[in-house]
Amino acid sequence: MTQDLLNQARAQATAPDFIQVFDDPITAEGPLSGLTVAVKDLFDVQGYATGAGTAPRTDRPLATRDAAAVARLRAAGAGLIGHANMTEYAYSGLGLNPHHGTPLTPLIEGCIAGGSTSGGASAVARGVADIALGTDTGGSARIPAAFCGIYGFKPTASTIPRDGAVPLSHSLDSVGVLTRDPALLRPTLNVLRDTPLPAADMPGTVIVPQNFGLDDVAPEIVEAFETALEVLAEGGISIRRLSLPFFDRYRALPVWQFSAVESRCHHGAEYDAHRDRLDPRVASRMARAEETDAPGYARTLLARQALADEATRIFADMPILLPSVAIMPPRLSDLEDDASYDRLNLLALRNTSLANVIDGCSVSLPLADLPGAGLMLTGPRGSDAMMLGMAEVLASEL
Amino acid sequence: MTQDLLNQARAQATAPDFIQVFDDPITAEGPLSGLTVAVKDLFDVQGYATGAGTAPRTDRPLATRDAAAVARLRAAGAGLIGHANMTEYAYSGLGLNPHHGTPLTPLIEGCIAGGSTSGGASAVARGVADIALGTDTGGSARIPAAFCGIYGFKPTASTIPRDGAVPLSHSLDSVGVLTRDPALLRPTLNVLRDTPLPAADMPGTVIVPQNFGLDDVAPEIVEAFETALEVLAEGGISIRRLSLPFFDRYRALPVWQFSAVESRCHHGAEYDAHRDRLDPRVASRMARAEETDAPGYARTLLARQALADEATRIFADMPILLPSVAIMPPRLSDLEDDASYDRLNLLALRNTSLANVIDGCSVSLPLADLPGAGLMLTGPRGSDAMMLGMAEVLASEL
Repeated sequence: MTQDLLNQARAQATAPDFIQVFDDPITAEGPLSGLTVAVKDLFDVQGYATGAGTAPRTDRPLATRDAAAVARLRAAGAGLIGHANMTEYAYSGLGLNPHHGTPLTPLIEGCIAGGSTSGGASAVARGVADIALGTDTGGSARIPAAFCGIYGFKPTASTIPRDGAVPLSHSLDSVGVLTRDPALLRPTLNVLRDTPLPAADMPGTVIVPQNFGLDDVAPEIVEAFETALEVLAEGGISIRRLSLPFFDRYRALPVWQFSAVESRCHHGAEYDAHRDRLDPRVASRMARAEETDAPGYARTLLARQALADEATRIFADMPILLPSVAIMPPRLSDLEDDASYDRLNLLALRNTSLANVIDGCSVSLPLADLPGAGLMLTGPRGSDAMMLGMAEVLASEL
Repeated sequence: MTQDLLNQARAQATAPDFIQVFDDPITAEGPLSGLTVAVKDLFDVQGYATGAGTAPRTDRPLATRDAAAVARLRAAGAGLIGHANMTEYAYSGLGLNPHHGTPLTPLIEGCIAGGSTSGGASAVARGVADIALGTDTGGSARIPAAFCGIYGFKPTASTIPRDGAVPLSHSLDSVGVLTRDPALLRPTLNVLRDTPLPAADMPGTVIVPQNFGLDDVAPEIVEAFETALEVLAEGGISIRRLSLPFFDRYRALPVWQFSAVESRCHHGAEYDAHRDRLDPRVASRMARAEETDAPGYARTLLARQALADEATRIFADMPILLPSVAIMPPRLSDLEDDASYDRLNLLALRNTSLANVIDGCSVSLPLADLPGAGLMLTGPRGSDAMMLGMAEVLASEL
């Protein structure tokens, strides 16, 4: 029966959400038996080529072993559907892909699914997959979760191994999990993590920053966010609207350097030899590595470390609450000119990137009142159990 | 009586070993009472300017608090003599300083003390100080210890805080301790460390690498080293001469990038505005930051991390034994031309730098048969208690 479900999901796994469909059988039983997974195209799956969303090529080697996260899902009984579409090298928050097509959100006609975990989010939202195994370097799990009306969890990077996953920015990369059913986040994270989620106290207070994350937010998102705040306040959660010097320091950090420099660190040979093969919008972002030098990047790494350490102290008992994304899912046709693309991509990534820079964890919940928008909780390094527990409570209230 | 000893030491604390003599009294009693310390000019001492060996200037602010390591020594009853001379910004292993003069080893007429902890090593060797508080980024404690016939300990970087110390390369910097009496290493390290040294088993085996560290070693050092090996073997220690692929990978790492890039990260503003104030041999090394780019430096950081992790596995129970330095202390007059300086500086740093790159710990012991030469034990991250215990045993045998 489970294999039948998987075969059925595989039959529905079509482009542009999927790049490749697997055909190996389920071989284990476990906590994820009966559940299907869309695997982002950057995770190695034994016997298949890993493309990371780049142009199709026939000369790619087949992976000789599963990525660590894939192996854990497989051993837990999950059925792996196929490699899901993504932004090339996971390098953008919108999910456009000129090689394999661009997944759309099922919620709003003609609008994008978001990215970079674009295919996985769309597949989960459409019911083709139960779980998407994604990544999150600046919002790549949470942005498409918000745009597609599902849940997206970005864990503290060190809690889930990234072996066998193609890196974008090793400083900010983490595995990411997307689900339609909030109750699936916990068992999936427990399968993926090195250690099970511990018990956690729920914080009674959340911070709504007054000097970060609420500029340039679409008016309908502001309205839905304020309604959600009222629901939380009625549920007994104390909302503190604070302007913290921390956020000014955060905004001064040149966050773009991480992906620009580190993508060239990992994919520089491909960039140098075959730039013409790349999505021009990814290549132009990789080119920005040349806008800093090694000492400048070293300074950025140190400043990031200081911010992450500071965040651990400030936000230990008070997560940050913001709209997941400042914009509603754009129409694909509105992203044709580069200036619009650049502006909307930056705005899409703005709120989510905070969690990656502070080496923290974060979860995006769908806002029931406004399909395509999300509410995001962000906590410091290691507060995963608290973020998840709070998300489970909020999921039943919102 | 202790204050009298300190005053007496201060009266002997002259150039070029010392740049500045302190005049504040001893205010605490503790495990280091009765002992005097030469403080490398890069540690903040409350009420005095920190120069890091740069040209004298009258516009420097006075430190408003002690560096963490200085505060711990002071609270333990140590008497602080003064700021000891060093290579500018600690950037070289030879200890030449055109602004403040170059300390010489007391062991061989006309030969340098080594560096960068040049003044501290010379002061300890001459009996002016009991302890030198130094740093070690690539050998800056161990090279001058070898040249001056004393003990030099480079701890695992994370075990002693570096707050209030001017950085050279934050990836490789560690505090360093130099003493004439090997029995002083343990109490000094225990005062400086966050936690006391644990008990440790002594390894029965040491590795003598066959593909690293023994090329281009001065013949008299090879001879003294082999004699020491015989003594150790007679003492029951098993000597394994091994050629390990690890050392080939280590030698392929562009180690120069760390200090070049990270010195510009920290001191780039001074370099850009006042390069003419700098020691030309330091400035030319800082200039090398331009020989890599941000992605190249990112790759070097990742390769270093992989080597350090690998070293933790390979060398956990088998420290590495090598001559501390491949050369005998050069004559100051032999370092006048830049080509000789460059060659001898690289050779001086070669063996010691390994410990910094693997994020490990290391100790240099004087070779009694050959004044000016040292025997060096190097272990992986966190093996400080083992290295120290073994050094204490060897000190009584060699």
